[in-house]
Amino acid sequence: MTMTASYAAARAKAPLAPFEINRREPGPQDVVIDIQFCGVCHSDIHQVRDEWGGAIFPMVPGHEIVGTVSRVGRDVTKFKAGDLAGVGCMVDSCGVCENCKRGEEQYCVKGANYTYNSREKNGDVTYGGYSTSIVVDQSFVLHIPSSLDLAATAPLLCAGITTYSPLRHWNIGRGSKLGVMGLGGLGHMALKFGRAFGAHVVQFTTSPGKAADALRLGANEVVLSTDPAAMKAQAGSFDFILDTISAPHDIAAYLKLLKADGTLTLVGAPDEPLAIPAFALLAGRKSLAGSGIGGIAETQEMLDFCAEHGIVSDIEMIPIQKIDEAYERMLKNDVKYRFVIDTASLKSADAPA
Amino acid sequence: MTMTASYAAARAKAPLAPFEINRREPGPQDVVIDIQFCGVCHSDIHQVRDEWGGAIFPMVPGHEIVGTVSRVGRDVTKFKAGDLAGVGCMVDSCGVCENCKRGEEQYCVKGANYTYNSREKNGDVTYGGYSTSIVVDQSFVLHIPSSLDLAATAPLLCAGITTYSPLRHWNIGRGSKLGVMGLGGLGHMALKFGRAFGAHVVQFTTSPGKAADALRLGANEVVLSTDPAAMKAQAGSFDFILDTISAPHDIAAYLKLLKADGTLTLVGAPDEPLAIPAFALLAGRKSLAGSGIGGIAETQEMLDFCAEHGIVSDIEMIPIQKIDEAYERMLKNDVKYRFVIDTASLKSADAPA
Repeated sequence: MTMTASYAAARAKAPLAPFEINRREPGPQDVVIDIQFCGVCHSDIHQVRDEWGGAIFPMVPGHEIVGTVSRVGRDVTKFKAGDLAGVGCMVDSCGVCENCKRGEEQYCVKGANYTYNSREKNGDVTYGGYSTSIVVDQSFVLHIPSSLDLAATAPLLCAGITTYSPLRHWNIGRGSKLGVMGLGGLGHMALKFGRAFGAHVVQFTTSPGKAADALRLGANEVVLSTDPAAMKAQAGSFDFILDTISAPHDIAAYLKLLKADGTLTLVGAPDEPLAIPAFALLAGRKSLAGSGIGGIAETQEMLDFCAEHGIVSDIEMIPIQKIDEAYERMLKNDVKYRFVIDTASLKSADAPA
Repeated sequence: MTMTASYAAARAKAPLAPFEINRREPGPQDVVIDIQFCGVCHSDIHQVRDEWGGAIFPMVPGHEIVGTVSRVGRDVTKFKAGDLAGVGCMVDSCGVCENCKRGEEQYCVKGANYTYNSREKNGDVTYGGYSTSIVVDQSFVLHIPSSLDLAATAPLLCAGITTYSPLRHWNIGRGSKLGVMGLGGLGHMALKFGRAFGAHVVQFTTSPGKAADALRLGANEVVLSTDPAAMKAQAGSFDFILDTISAPHDIAAYLKLLKADGTLTLVGAPDEPLAIPAFALLAGRKSLAGSGIGGIAETQEMLDFCAEHGIVSDIEMIPIQKIDEAYERMLKNDVKYRFVIDTASLKSADAPA
């Protein structure tokens, strides 16, 4: 076992504090990664506050993990010591159900084994990337392109794949009109991918102050969703809208903006049910869908696409000691656009030896 | 103008009563149809009671119309006097928008001109099939196969196409597991089509007494939706579920029954918004969609399919004088499975001359 410095929440809504976890000795298929950076996802807040229920404490959050391989098990062929490596939201899955077999491990029928606030197949609790190392089966470890800024690639492991996957699944590209709801960690990645895929990209926002940034990040147009005339002018014109908003909001207003046969896909998870009038879907054979991260093979495809197109997240680096403050700022949308923890800060004075 | 006997609601929730309408003189493209039978759709009730808003009174409902052509305009080539003919939910549309051009007139960007409670392009109010004749542009008139029982084909014009179209659109056939929610006018047609397309068909019902009938109509299995164990046994197994229920109900319980990438499509229209938890869609990239009737070309395709496979609606014939009683029975699900008005009853003593 390897003692690993981390930050954990001792119970729901407790401030995060230094915590020591024992990582397992690597088995034949395991990769040991020295974590250098870990992105801070909105779902980290939902989970440390137990807003989705069933939380396991103490909880070490973090599933946007990048670093360097320090050691590999004897049967590992995909990685060697010194390689850059990443881990996203999953560390394992059943591997035999129909979804795992087609590379959609995120939809594993038995439930994937998530990177934190979950359990390994053997029942051990999983602890995430707000720590200095992690041990993961090679099948769930990604190659991180060396051409990109390493810290800024961390958010690709969740915010990146969560937006890339639905845009690919619904074939968004040249000729598509794509709407993006919300401009945060997910939204800003959707703008970058939508533009790179060749779509006409429209950012919806409630904040006029975000318009210039949205255009810089890839939007062709910005629509103020609080302006009824501006919204009406967009009615019936979208092939696809990606909804990255994790607070309760009025979906029906956006369903009106879809063309016949259009789809609005949720990637954020408001904790209250959405209110959907049936006619908003019947009139025009529209779909309201959801999408959760992406499979491992597609995550690697996304990372390679990012390397080819020079795409990373816009980030603000923080030491782990600022994590509670970062959460508060995220809840006010006060981050452009993803906090990334520099795990060197875990080795500082207040961390366990 | 032709004086036509009909039954109309004078105002929201008024009982229906004899009413005389003036049908227009047929123009060059018009077909005059002597109506023999008209099906009674659940949406007739919603509309005569103004439950969807914007109702136009007096209102002559009815959009499942079959009869015989009595006269045609000079440029009509599709029909001649003596032909069987049908009219469904639409009598016209703009004809030039992208949806009309691809044969999806029901999604006309300007709004189709509906058979009743709507307006013609020139602004005239439309009156439906609870009447002895109707005048309709040939483009919106259907050929009714002579091999089928005429009265039992009437419901195909709405209940038939409303269920046929989504099953075709989502490619339901051999190898598909199809769920049908609700066993009424729409549900019983979905069973017949689902079985004819080769799917494995599962009927969901709250009424154990409907099981034998569901099996007779085409279901391979019947699941009592009030039995938690029976519902749980179906979790994650459906490719597609067609929801024909027009009363408020718990959709989330059925989303759990879909496989990853499965779709639940609404064809009923509850008048309260549905409550959809985001995770019910995110977990498994599921879709909640809606579908409204079908285009004219597809409606003809459906009628021809019915002729080939001997499919009609199960009906109970009524005289127009029993229409209010029929509505009350429909609200109690007390009809197997569609009321059809014999319009000969409109020529009886209490109808206008």
